[in-house]
Amino acid sequence: MSDLVTHAHTLDAHDPLAAHLDAFVEAPGVSAYLDGNSLGRPLRDLPERLAAFVQNDWGTRLIRSWDEQWMDLPTELGDRIGRVALGAAAGQTVVADSTTVLLYKLMRAAVAAQPERTDIVIEEGNFPTDRFVAEGVAAEHGLTLRWISPDPIAGVQVSDVKAVVSEKTALVVLSHVDYRSGALADMKAITDAVHKTGALMLWDLCHSVGVIPTELDACGVDLAVGCTYKYLNGGPGSPAFAYVNARHHGLLRQPIQGWMGAGDVFAMGDAYAPASGIRQFISGTPPVLGMLAMQGMLDLIEEASIEAVRAKSKTLTDLVVRAFDEELAPLGVRLLSPRDAAERGGHVTIGHPDFAEVTKTLWADGVIPDFRFPDGIRLGLSPLSTSHAEALHGVLAVRDALV
Amino acid sequence: MSDLVTHAHTLDAHDPLAAHLDAFVEAPGVSAYLDGNSLGRPLRDLPERLAAFVQNDWGTRLIRSWDEQWMDLPTELGDRIGRVALGAAAGQTVVADSTTVLLYKLMRAAVAAQPERTDIVIEEGNFPTDRFVAEGVAAEHGLTLRWISPDPIAGVQVSDVKAVVSEKTALVVLSHVDYRSGALADMKAITDAVHKTGALMLWDLCHSVGVIPTELDACGVDLAVGCTYKYLNGGPGSPAFAYVNARHHGLLRQPIQGWMGAGDVFAMGDAYAPASGIRQFISGTPPVLGMLAMQGMLDLIEEASIEAVRAKSKTLTDLVVRAFDEELAPLGVRLLSPRDAAERGGHVTIGHPDFAEVTKTLWADGVIPDFRFPDGIRLGLSPLSTSHAEALHGVLAVRDALV
Repeated sequence: MSDLVTHAHTLDAHDPLAAHLDAFVEAPGVSAYLDGNSLGRPLRDLPERLAAFVQNDWGTRLIRSWDEQWMDLPTELGDRIGRVALGAAAGQTVVADSTTVLLYKLMRAAVAAQPERTDIVIEEGNFPTDRFVAEGVAAEHGLTLRWISPDPIAGVQVSDVKAVVSEKTALVVLSHVDYRSGALADMKAITDAVHKTGALMLWDLCHSVGVIPTELDACGVDLAVGCTYKYLNGGPGSPAFAYVNARHHGLLRQPIQGWMGAGDVFAMGDAYAPASGIRQFISGTPPVLGMLAMQGMLDLIEEASIEAVRAKSKTLTDLVVRAFDEELAPLGVRLLSPRDAAERGGHVTIGHPDFAEVTKTLWADGVIPDFRFPDGIRLGLSPLSTSHAEALHGVLAVRDALV
Repeated sequence: MSDLVTHAHTLDAHDPLAAHLDAFVEAPGVSAYLDGNSLGRPLRDLPERLAAFVQNDWGTRLIRSWDEQWMDLPTELGDRIGRVALGAAAGQTVVADSTTVLLYKLMRAAVAAQPERTDIVIEEGNFPTDRFVAEGVAAEHGLTLRWISPDPIAGVQVSDVKAVVSEKTALVVLSHVDYRSGALADMKAITDAVHKTGALMLWDLCHSVGVIPTELDACGVDLAVGCTYKYLNGGPGSPAFAYVNARHHGLLRQPIQGWMGAGDVFAMGDAYAPASGIRQFISGTPPVLGMLAMQGMLDLIEEASIEAVRAKSKTLTDLVVRAFDEELAPLGVRLLSPRDAAERGGHVTIGHPDFAEVTKTLWADGVIPDFRFPDGIRLGLSPLSTSHAEALHGVLAVRDALV
């Protein structure tokens, strides 16, 4: 075990991103925060940023700020996320709504554009909201849901997808990183396989955005959604983003037609005419306050580079897997994530029948992983806010709570 | 004119709510803010509230806050809005999404529950997003839109509604206060007339919530939506609220089925089973940050009472109408709002061909009304943050910009 501690300290001593650890708000009483994959930590300068917003942008410029800055914020911030984290050229990404609402809009748009195709393909272990929305959209359109059943640890492989897609498939919906196992899907190969059948591909990036460099344009992805409160640290319930590849603009039409997605917002015209480009995927008034916190984190990621973030994510999860092997496997804990860092995202999942109780103990003691029913603990390691020592401390605390 | 000034000062001297004027952030350079009906002003203590939230609830409690407080925030805050401003018993109001998205969900739920009825009735001058959503929902369900065409100043009367509704009507969608004229609709009489045909009634409360006491339960209203960034001062793009009368729970089903509206959110079950009660109308992760600012304003309204807010709203708009008569009518300005305070909400609209230019001048000079295409100026008077002297100053500034 002292080897592990030495190893963690060595990794921290050589961590090129270590200076950023101080950028986050301190959490008194918390010795290991291992849930950055559910809720990223706030930046230290956020209270000042919020106060300036309240005093100036909102409190003094008042309604004038809509003209001066807020009307374009959803697309400007979308472009920024696209550039920093998604490999998406400008004009294809917008911040709006929640992941669930954006999934609904994009799924509806995709199936409505292909009335001759009768299937939606989705993975049976996909995040519930993805499955629930797909189930609802399929019912509305009289479509059939076809299920991919991958290995629960390895996650979806291109062969799993090929076994289910056909010329009847309208849309395939998959998560880039599995919310349970952390398995990382091969975006390019799967998107290519889907396109060979003529179907559209919708990626859920909730568990990869901000921690995995993604190349949406280069992979030819059609549609993507993701949330901003995990690795983008936007705060609880901050709005989601949608990516719609430019080749589909004007061809796909989303169903929630509101004033903010209209061509001329203030014309107050008689009939809805959608805006051109990505704006059409907005419905209501943009959630401006919820768009502030993520901006500081995007600054940090841009400064560090998403590639460096990914590199640290690998050393963090490798350390956790090594500590698992040495300290947890002997206690009967199961590894529920891929062993190869290239095949997983930013979290490592482990299983044990006592983990519901263990999580309660850990939370009370200030070690905060994420519990997933029925017996999983996710160790989520947000690279910019987590040291190797902290990650190791979390694993050892799990061990101590078990013995 | 000196009479007007004296009158305004007398009203301020006897204003029981005058002490609350200091509760709002100062706006340097702004001598009259007359757009509280578009974007309410932030409270002075909001930066502290946000800082405490960032340090404690988010930054220190971290993911634990979902269990400790955030999961119930949408319904607790909904109940609070219901109690303070809507005349709605607990369990029927929820904060979520945007007005547009909630309009979509409720309209879809309402028409899907009555497949034998073929019409949606809406007013031709209703706010664009209401009309655009209705247009989209009607197209999805193969329904007919029937238009009410009221007098543009007096607004929708019960006779206008009776002339259009029939046993074919599934749903009537109207605004409680007209966003242009400020005309206040007779909620009880219109809801009764709609119910006589067996249709459902959906009220848009965006321009009345927080300034007009509303009695949703007593009026037997079926459905309502509203925004929180006008008279509830929730900040730009703060989330909206939906009211669904308890008698419809379990019978109306909204289409965007997400994990946060499921019966057991963390079961991650196979198929979507909606939560009971109002929770079912939630879809995605609640926008927690956007729910903070309105809480301070709800405190203020509760302390002052919504009836006292309404009383001051009447003296404010009466003063503006009197000043209009004396100072603006002689210059050819038209009054586009009802003359009787009992028949209007919190804003007064005036018209003149030069108002696009006038608004630019006023904004640059720190007098901030709202311009509405093609030639309207709305003078929105949020009672808790606006003095009579400020309202009068705004009218006189309009006069000075015209001559």
